[in-house]
Amino acid sequence: MTTISLARGVPAAELLPVEELADCAREVLRREGSTLLNYGPVAGYTPLREWVAARHGVEVSRVVLTPGSLPGLVVLFQVLLAAGRHPLVEAPSYDRPLGILDTLGVQPAAVPLTDDGLELGALERELAARRPSFLYAIPTFQNPSGRTYTEDVRRELIELARVHDLLLLEDDPYRLVHFGGEPPPTLFELAAGDGVVYASSFSKVVAPGLRVGYLIVPPELVGAVEERAVATYLSPAVSLQAALYEFIARGGLEPNLARVRTGIGARRDATLAALDEHLGGAATWSRPDGGYFVWLDLADGVSADDVADRAHEAGVAVVKGSDFFSRGAGGHSSLRLAYSFVSTRELGDGIARLAAAIPAPAAV
Amino acid sequence: MTTISLARGVPAAELLPVEELADCAREVLRREGSTLLNYGPVAGYTPLREWVAARHGVEVSRVVLTPGSLPGLVVLFQVLLAAGRHPLVEAPSYDRPLGILDTLGVQPAAVPLTDDGLELGALERELAARRPSFLYAIPTFQNPSGRTYTEDVRRELIELARVHDLLLLEDDPYRLVHFGGEPPPTLFELAAGDGVVYASSFSKVVAPGLRVGYLIVPPELVGAVEERAVATYLSPAVSLQAALYEFIARGGLEPNLARVRTGIGARRDATLAALDEHLGGAATWSRPDGGYFVWLDLADGVSADDVADRAHEAGVAVVKGSDFFSRGAGGHSSLRLAYSFVSTRELGDGIARLAAAIPAPAAV
Repeated sequence: MTTISLARGVPAAELLPVEELADCAREVLRREGSTLLNYGPVAGYTPLREWVAARHGVEVSRVVLTPGSLPGLVVLFQVLLAAGRHPLVEAPSYDRPLGILDTLGVQPAAVPLTDDGLELGALERELAARRPSFLYAIPTFQNPSGRTYTEDVRRELIELARVHDLLLLEDDPYRLVHFGGEPPPTLFELAAGDGVVYASSFSKVVAPGLRVGYLIVPPELVGAVEERAVATYLSPAVSLQAALYEFIARGGLEPNLARVRTGIGARRDATLAALDEHLGGAATWSRPDGGYFVWLDLADGVSADDVADRAHEAGVAVVKGSDFFSRGAGGHSSLRLAYSFVSTRELGDGIARLAAAIPAPAAV
Repeated sequence: MTTISLARGVPAAELLPVEELADCAREVLRREGSTLLNYGPVAGYTPLREWVAARHGVEVSRVVLTPGSLPGLVVLFQVLLAAGRHPLVEAPSYDRPLGILDTLGVQPAAVPLTDDGLELGALERELAARRPSFLYAIPTFQNPSGRTYTEDVRRELIELARVHDLLLLEDDPYRLVHFGGEPPPTLFELAAGDGVVYASSFSKVVAPGLRVGYLIVPPELVGAVEERAVATYLSPAVSLQAALYEFIARGGLEPNLARVRTGIGARRDATLAALDEHLGGAATWSRPDGGYFVWLDLADGVSADDVADRAHEAGVAVVKGSDFFSRGAGGHSSLRLAYSFVSTRELGDGIARLAAAIPAPAAV
């Protein structure tokens, strides 16, 4: 029995625009290879920076293209911590940034996430108690929960952030992968760019293998971010940034987005249908309108670690919830399911296998 | 007047195999794009790992391809420092690793470099006094000095390292860019791989823009290095690694090396000739048999900072020697000249401009 992976938050192979990118890569290397194949500017390929800047309505000097979004976050966290800022995260939060902070020797404050977004009462208490000074958040189609902040929560969060001098770091790689209507505006838009660092990536909308993420940073942080980036990786792979720009310039982005939304949306539908069929009564789960993930809460007292282990034996891989809490301080009855990678049939089979690994609820 | 850069240690544009890499990139993306455009394995594209492993006679599991060599060094330093090892560097040393150590909050011990390699008496004293436990070194065509350790120094260094449990980190990106005979064997070869971590890159032999470096790590460190690499950048750009492998598999490496050796060798010749012509009596300099750099020692008491500033006003950029000492603790009468980037004519003109910026020696 082949293991079905509901663990990997990566796009299905069929959604990658292979032929188009192959042609774009050759075209840009032929045309500009003598610069693209040398060390590039640390902030990346200028035409793509300009495109990102125009899309977000900012000065091009504020856009730093990074080799995937994770190295951008590493650099940014280093800069913010060096400036004496203390972090706050969502609970649950994306595990990699938690790992970065842990490596940097910092334990973040944490505020619970609800179906509407960050729990603002808890946020106020944390702001008063521990005085964190930057928030790392994924307000739209969050990893790991699939949840999206309402527009009201966004506006209140921005107001609280202003009052408490809390810098907002909005990580937004899933926004364009929506299955219904547009999600609420970004924090960056609602705050008119003030007090918000915006991070995103082309991994979920074109291809992760391009390794192109980006940051939009306040003017006063640009120098420090670029300096730290040079010190960490010298320059990103500008040839891939150029190939991506060529793909966009040829009009490839919108048709690709349509394909991604349809392909991932069908997987979300299959996932929710299979959960309804196999797990009704045994768990509750988020109902994402976009992105890659469903968050599953098992009945109180059911060990997600045990379920994940049994599920693995039964041929389905999931990620245990505690991976998404700083130092494992939560999520012990939760699981993250990624529906982006496998086929709709495998999603159905995988969730059936998972259901068999969950203990029946105790009789009342 | 356009500034002539003797500061940039990057290859001349004409030495990059643009057309070949453009074709290779398209070929591998067409053939394997559905995997190459997704997240890749953190240790890199398997066929290229196998090729590197065969070339160095090691198990493929010990080869970690990195997105340029610098991120590999960042990861490795983090792993070694976390294991409680304290660093030792050459004086002068490549400035980027010094910067990494500084960011990590560590000031390395340092041992002077002579024309024959590391000064072994000074090394013994440092080993006794400060007990450093890993050495970062570029034994062949060093950056910044252009110097190469003799085989005798290499053998004695390995022996000392064994006695003192000093792990050797051999950074070797310039080895294949030799202009005369082969340089002495690597520390890695002489020690039969024992107690040596080997780092290299394809930046100087094919193209920096590919962002392909590699580490050969002892089996017991592989897990920690891969874990830290995932946490830092998730995965390297495997499509560029595949394009590079295709270039090698098509037989492109050796002809390209011949071209690079000829092109950079002619620049080295022009540099030494211009130094003899313009700077005889005012300075002494290294005579590299390979690599990108000449190290210039001005007369005692002449400020390299002042000379670098005046040279910049006169239209030639050089790097001041103190950049290559931890926290600027040396090199105040030295300069690094890079001859890899500009044309032989510009090298001659640049060195003439530099000469005019150096004060005449005081009359005896």
